[in-house]
Amino acid sequence: MPKGQKTRARIIAEAASLFNQRGFEGGSLSELMEATGLEKGGIYRHFSSKEELAAEAFDYAWKVVLDTRMHDLDRIPNSIDKLKQFIVNFIDRRPSVPGGCPLLNTAIDADDGNPVLRERARKGLYEWRDRLSSIVDSGIKRGEIRRGVDAKEVATLIISSLEGALVIGRLEGNREALVTAQSHLERYLETEVRLSRQ
Amino acid sequence: MPKGQKTRARIIAEAASLFNQRGFEGGSLSELMEATGLEKGGIYRHFSSKEELAAEAFDYAWKVVLDTRMHDLDRIPNSIDKLKQFIVNFIDRRPSVPGGCPLLNTAIDADDGNPVLRERARKGLYEWRDRLSSIVDSGIKRGEIRRGVDAKEVATLIISSLEGALVIGRLEGNREALVTAQSHLERYLETEVRLSRQ
Repeated sequence: MPKGQKTRARIIAEAASLFNQRGFEGGSLSELMEATGLEKGGIYRHFSSKEELAAEAFDYAWKVVLDTRMHDLDRIPNSIDKLKQFIVNFIDRRPSVPGGCPLLNTAIDADDGNPVLRERARKGLYEWRDRLSSIVDSGIKRGEIRRGVDAKEVATLIISSLEGALVIGRLEGNREALVTAQSHLERYLETEVRLSRQ
Repeated sequence: MPKGQKTRARIIAEAASLFNQRGFEGGSLSELMEATGLEKGGIYRHFSSKEELAAEAFDYAWKVVLDTRMHDLDRIPNSIDKLKQFIVNFIDRRPSVPGGCPLLNTAIDADDGNPVLRERARKGLYEWRDRLSSIVDSGIKRGEIRRGVDAKEVATLIISSLEGALVIGRLEGNREALVTAQSHLERYLETEVRLSRQ
């Protein structure tokens, strides 16, 4: 990688950490200068605006977080077991970018602000939902999931239940709501989604 | 009400509107001065600090929002029907304080900031959960809800499903996720919580 590109990648990674904790809008340039050891000019030579940097940092954070949540799912053949492992990953695995779920942070922080960032977050949500939906769809084809189950609905329920439990967990400072959501979703997947062979 | 108390109440109401939209930390004094028509001194004569004003504004916003969600539930005798109406209120009724759910906004905005505000939000969550739990408990006593159902768990599931759907809805700019959560929760209440007489 050429040196300029390497520096740009390093700035994005540091900005992802900083902005995901402080807000993609709220993170200050001086903190970013400290984290990267670069001057203002050295940072903005690589980006046309703070909006562009925030959007790139969001994409980076989101890729890390989504990869962590989808970790090793390919090894699991059954689609319901895959979805259950996804939920375990969501609760147990700590992504290398700190600050919690970038989608949640951005949905609330950027709700009346930066439209570029908001659009990236929306794309991130769709990507996530598509990946879960396609697990459901292939489960239907493979005869593991009931016909008539709406893949997008299952994906939306899993995502919104887990994101909501994150909100409650952040207020309470514990994982109780996440564990409650997990056992509820597991029961739902077993009783309403899995095709049981009798 | 004495004039001073009246002014204080008006400042809190204006601050609740402003902070719930802009962030309880992010709302600026100059906007609040404009909304109230008061000078800085006229505002801070009534509060010892911005933290105190933010906390009072949160409490005001939360009372309005929770009352809107619990609207007219007392009229409904059956506890499962009460919980279902609560969900309808949550989705359909617009509280007079704009800016969405104050609990969601504060959980994300104040997660590493103002500890006073965070504590108020936590108290708000507990109050909400207690009110839903006590509907479940009285449903068990009245023979409308299965024995063995965990009231706190039902309340937590309803709260986190709806709050998560709000997050998704804010990103998507529509109510699809809320409607999906509603029909899922209704099915759950009917099949796993209601005591069916055969």
